[in-house]
Amino acid sequence: MSKKVITAGIVVIGDELLSGRTQDSNISYIAKWLEPLGIRVEEARIIKDCESIIVNTVREFSKRFTYIFTTGGIGPTHDDITADAIAKAFNLSIDIREDAVRMLKQRYSDKELNKARLRMARIPKGASLIKNPVSQAPGFQVSNVFTLAGIPSIMRAMLIDVQDRLETGIKLYSIAVMAEGISEGDAALPLSMIEKSYNNVILGSYPNFNSELIGVQFVARGPDSEELKKVKLQLEAMVDNLKQTESIK
Amino acid sequence: MSKKVITAGIVVIGDELLSGRTQDSNISYIAKWLEPLGIRVEEARIIKDCESIIVNTVREFSKRFTYIFTTGGIGPTHDDITADAIAKAFNLSIDIREDAVRMLKQRYSDKELNKARLRMARIPKGASLIKNPVSQAPGFQVSNVFTLAGIPSIMRAMLIDVQDRLETGIKLYSIAVMAEGISEGDAALPLSMIEKSYNNVILGSYPNFNSELIGVQFVARGPDSEELKKVKLQLEAMVDNLKQTESIK
Repeated sequence: MSKKVITAGIVVIGDELLSGRTQDSNISYIAKWLEPLGIRVEEARIIKDCESIIVNTVREFSKRFTYIFTTGGIGPTHDDITADAIAKAFNLSIDIREDAVRMLKQRYSDKELNKARLRMARIPKGASLIKNPVSQAPGFQVSNVFTLAGIPSIMRAMLIDVQDRLETGIKLYSIAVMAEGISEGDAALPLSMIEKSYNNVILGSYPNFNSELIGVQFVARGPDSEELKKVKLQLEAMVDNLKQTESIK
Repeated sequence: MSKKVITAGIVVIGDELLSGRTQDSNISYIAKWLEPLGIRVEEARIIKDCESIIVNTVREFSKRFTYIFTTGGIGPTHDDITADAIAKAFNLSIDIREDAVRMLKQRYSDKELNKARLRMARIPKGASLIKNPVSQAPGFQVSNVFTLAGIPSIMRAMLIDVQDRLETGIKLYSIAVMAEGISEGDAALPLSMIEKSYNNVILGSYPNFNSELIGVQFVARGPDSEELKKVKLQLEAMVDNLKQTESIK
């Protein structure tokens, strides 16, 4: 329990995610991947391929959170401007780097390595490269910002090379109690009483809803797994209680 | 073409979306729903159930964009704090409102309408209610901010009552050309040349990628559908050209 609270912010970059054309899956993947490392995602943003917005968002997040993950905008086409924006955010110069070119050469012949593809070797000065075992074009780390590809399969593969660079934090455990035929409004009072009796437990309730209410899932999260076992028993007792009240009505 | 550019920001509120427990689907749904109205989503954020963050985000978005849509945090439990945060963002008082209570009474008996459920009738002063045909507890509009439920089926039903309140903007059309066996890096140069020859066309390229490259989808968007037809022909010619070059190699 001597570990620190470690936080993260996620910045997903790409017009196609804001037009509704593409459904983002990178945010929830990164969040799930960070959970066992004890790193808590505090905020996620989906922003346009626009330099000033990328610069401002990265600068703000870099101050607020321990780690920042960006995805998207590091390909070979004219709308791939993330690398330049990250350089600008940290007032770094940017140029084609030989170690990144060597990575690209594992995939492309000299003839294929045209000007557009060489854009993928433009890396902010002093950045540390992040390996891409799928398509070779690397991501990179500048300060506390990890810049990854947008394509989910490549982004996920890049995280392997990121893991050892992260300080791990206080791990949060979670337990869930599913209650059918119970409504949030009936559980609200006992639920808040359970939460108040613990200092380090966060309780949430998530209704399952189609056209009609199916039930509620109660989720407790906290750093102490023994404490959560007690909370689980209390939640189960609460659900039994509410069901009895319901059947008396 | 005399219409204005109308913009939107989306704020998705809920810890469960940042732990990776729940995959958000509201952002892409709202973005797709706004597209035929000519309203462009400029940014989307997923934020925690934390009052100061909700307040700051809503204030910032309310200045930057024509319309803001928030989802989540208007239920009956202790972690549902969105209504109070919106009131604070606009320096409004907040209290239980009779018209909102009447809506809740369509669903709940007087006995069921406990203190927790009455929280769902707490509405910032002067707000206009948004009907909820699924579970009655209303959303509300304050200034240019529409506060909706987080449960997707309810959020979607609430949009019906929002539509007539929105000014429509310049509609963006889009065309897509799918090219198998072509790589973004080869298309980058001709693609940027096509984009430069039009003032109002945005071109994007989106690789289909599993473990290997399958192909690329080129998407053009713009306000002039006739112009997009020309762009489509140019993109198709570009793809044919690249395929011939590929087969000569």
